[in-house]
Amino acid sequence: MNKMGGWRIGRRAVLAAGVSALAMPFAARSEPLAVPRWSREPGTSPGPYGQPSPRENGTVRALMPLFGDVAPGISTANTPLERLEGVITPNGLHFARSHGGVPDIDPAAHRLLVHGKTTRTLTFDMEALARYPMVTRACFIECSGNSFQHSLSQPRQLELGLVHGLISTAEWTGVPLSVLLEEAGLENDAQWLLVEGADAVAMSRSLPVAKALKDSFVALYQNGERLRPEQGYPLRLIVPGWQGNLHIKWLRRIKAVDGPTHTRDETSRYSLLRPDGKAQEFPLPMPVKSLIVKPSYGQILKPGYQAVSGLAWTGTGLIDRVEVSADGGKTWDKARLDGQVREYLPVRFRWDWVWDGRPAVLQARAVDTKGHVQPSHAQWKAENHPTQRFHCNAIQSWSLDSDGIVENVFV
Amino acid sequence: MNKMGGWRIGRRAVLAAGVSALAMPFAARSEPLAVPRWSREPGTSPGPYGQPSPRENGTVRALMPLFGDVAPGISTANTPLERLEGVITPNGLHFARSHGGVPDIDPAAHRLLVHGKTTRTLTFDMEALARYPMVTRACFIECSGNSFQHSLSQPRQLELGLVHGLISTAEWTGVPLSVLLEEAGLENDAQWLLVEGADAVAMSRSLPVAKALKDSFVALYQNGERLRPEQGYPLRLIVPGWQGNLHIKWLRRIKAVDGPTHTRDETSRYSLLRPDGKAQEFPLPMPVKSLIVKPSYGQILKPGYQAVSGLAWTGTGLIDRVEVSADGGKTWDKARLDGQVREYLPVRFRWDWVWDGRPAVLQARAVDTKGHVQPSHAQWKAENHPTQRFHCNAIQSWSLDSDGIVENVFV
Repeated sequence: MNKMGGWRIGRRAVLAAGVSALAMPFAARSEPLAVPRWSREPGTSPGPYGQPSPRENGTVRALMPLFGDVAPGISTANTPLERLEGVITPNGLHFARSHGGVPDIDPAAHRLLVHGKTTRTLTFDMEALARYPMVTRACFIECSGNSFQHSLSQPRQLELGLVHGLISTAEWTGVPLSVLLEEAGLENDAQWLLVEGADAVAMSRSLPVAKALKDSFVALYQNGERLRPEQGYPLRLIVPGWQGNLHIKWLRRIKAVDGPTHTRDETSRYSLLRPDGKAQEFPLPMPVKSLIVKPSYGQILKPGYQAVSGLAWTGTGLIDRVEVSADGGKTWDKARLDGQVREYLPVRFRWDWVWDGRPAVLQARAVDTKGHVQPSHAQWKAENHPTQRFHCNAIQSWSLDSDGIVENVFV
Repeated sequence: MNKMGGWRIGRRAVLAAGVSALAMPFAARSEPLAVPRWSREPGTSPGPYGQPSPRENGTVRALMPLFGDVAPGISTANTPLERLEGVITPNGLHFARSHGGVPDIDPAAHRLLVHGKTTRTLTFDMEALARYPMVTRACFIECSGNSFQHSLSQPRQLELGLVHGLISTAEWTGVPLSVLLEEAGLENDAQWLLVEGADAVAMSRSLPVAKALKDSFVALYQNGERLRPEQGYPLRLIVPGWQGNLHIKWLRRIKAVDGPTHTRDETSRYSLLRPDGKAQEFPLPMPVKSLIVKPSYGQILKPGYQAVSGLAWTGTGLIDRVEVSADGGKTWDKARLDGQVREYLPVRFRWDWVWDGRPAVLQARAVDTKGHVQPSHAQWKAENHPTQRFHCNAIQSWSLDSDGIVENVFV
């Protein structure tokens, strides 16, 4: 629960570990308060649309233009997880992966077509869609290729967001696909949907009708306001808990069909290659995963109390528990979950720890209610072909040396 | 629940009301899809910090400089509720009420002092605070003077945000006051806190220790990123469910004292004047309230299906139910609550309605688990002195004429 009760429990754990009630003497004592310039003169007035403090201008997304001038607009913008707290990602920092750049769509000219194995062919303009009933849901979107760097044979010394920052969380609002498909009238053999965007690559994917009817929706709003252009303005698909590339941005077309369409990349990239060379097609839900965010690479610790925290999520069921180890996986302790656990919403976990200044290896391991346990790096490598780069949910390990320097290690 | 089940229940209600399953024929039929310019050429790459679409530049806060050149920085920025969906307010649109302008604080020079009736006097810098354990909580902040315009004798014809837009919702993360006060060591007769900001008016308020220890915290993060300057960067107080002015921005000082301090405005404005002229001091929790957001003033309806929706919240207990009336309060129907009800978090309610084209009056009424029922406008006026402008939670009524024009009325 969000009550301070969680903290009190943590505090008791710290006390039980033999630390005094004042294990956190981080405050300087009795320093007199200055009265700085900003307390002596009136400040400015807010503008119509607020912006972050210029003093926080290091909190930005890392941009990776993937093919430079050859293919403009193909890029990745990673969420700087290591600089964020809580669960929600602010809209300006939501990750963005684009295969054809961000189109500048005029909403007055944009249409959504629903056709194929339907009783009626329907075309919706934005004004029409806005009249339909809506649902609101907060959920993560994780790129199927997130943690690509973590699937390699050697650990990369990069900030957390550069390795794992293709996951973000927002509260989305839009029209359930069930409503639009009911109006179009699905034929009996309509088992899959082809969903397609209006960007220059006409990005398209195959979505099972069952998931579409269960909880997928056409989002118009992101954290309260209309979608950002890089998130699909004016329309994107939300397929809660399933891999990011299904959440088609700039959605323009839904075609009911009798089987998966095997669109571009759907076979080559978005299937999972097993060690025997066989591929698992359409591995659509994202696997259970957690990351320790604090501490992480690039931070330097001082001995004493550490407020360890991170994120855990799963596309299958609910997070059941998160366990943390400070000895490289020999012993595990249950972290407390801060706030309610909700389907497809990441949860922030917190773990109180007193570091004695000796070398240590920190790890978090999430378990979901379907019984899935996040694998070690070695286990994940053993279960996947050496060239497999997608759906990597292997445990992230952070080593700590006696100088308090945090590094990425494979354990 | 967030599952589509909610929608299905609503659909059944529409069907029960005698409407066909295709009551929402808002889609044009079989219009061929154009292939516009933006589908034929690559788009742009995302920048380091994303911004809203320039095509949505009407979605901004209304700014009211309250005393112009005489007192720079004294202003109100209202959240445009009528343009938003869901529950979370994006950081750029969070309401801001400032008595001395927004200070430009250097976090490296900022300090938080805890003193008074404490065993130790403590001074925290930002680096020290960041080492303490944190909690994350999503909650509303509502200005005590929100809906000021709604407390008058005549209804104002203004967009929803201009009347009721001094409420916003964010996910805040920070250090529990209980932790900081425990470290300082409260003396036995420390029953209240004086909490003070670093802005030019040194805004200060009185906060009971019991609420401070229960669930109040010093927030460093807002929807994942560091606080926005206009929200108190680098530090603000969060006092969940209690009136906005207690959530001291730019927090610099917490002094433990034995009673309320009666700081500036705390008596004159932030008490409630009853009809007999007696004042209720320190009415700290915000009362139960709801607003129909869609439709609201300025919108024009067409007959047929209407996806009515709005927000409900309370500072006392949990929202138990929201009832909606389309006949000016003669009959009421239960709205469905979209998503889980959580303490101090507003809930989006939704109500399916088929408008027959005849004049109607729409109202929503929230009830909380402490048994508080949102009063009618007449009830609220009867229970308050004619000059009372604060804590107005009277029901908002929208009249609909046969042309579909929505106006603000007092019923």
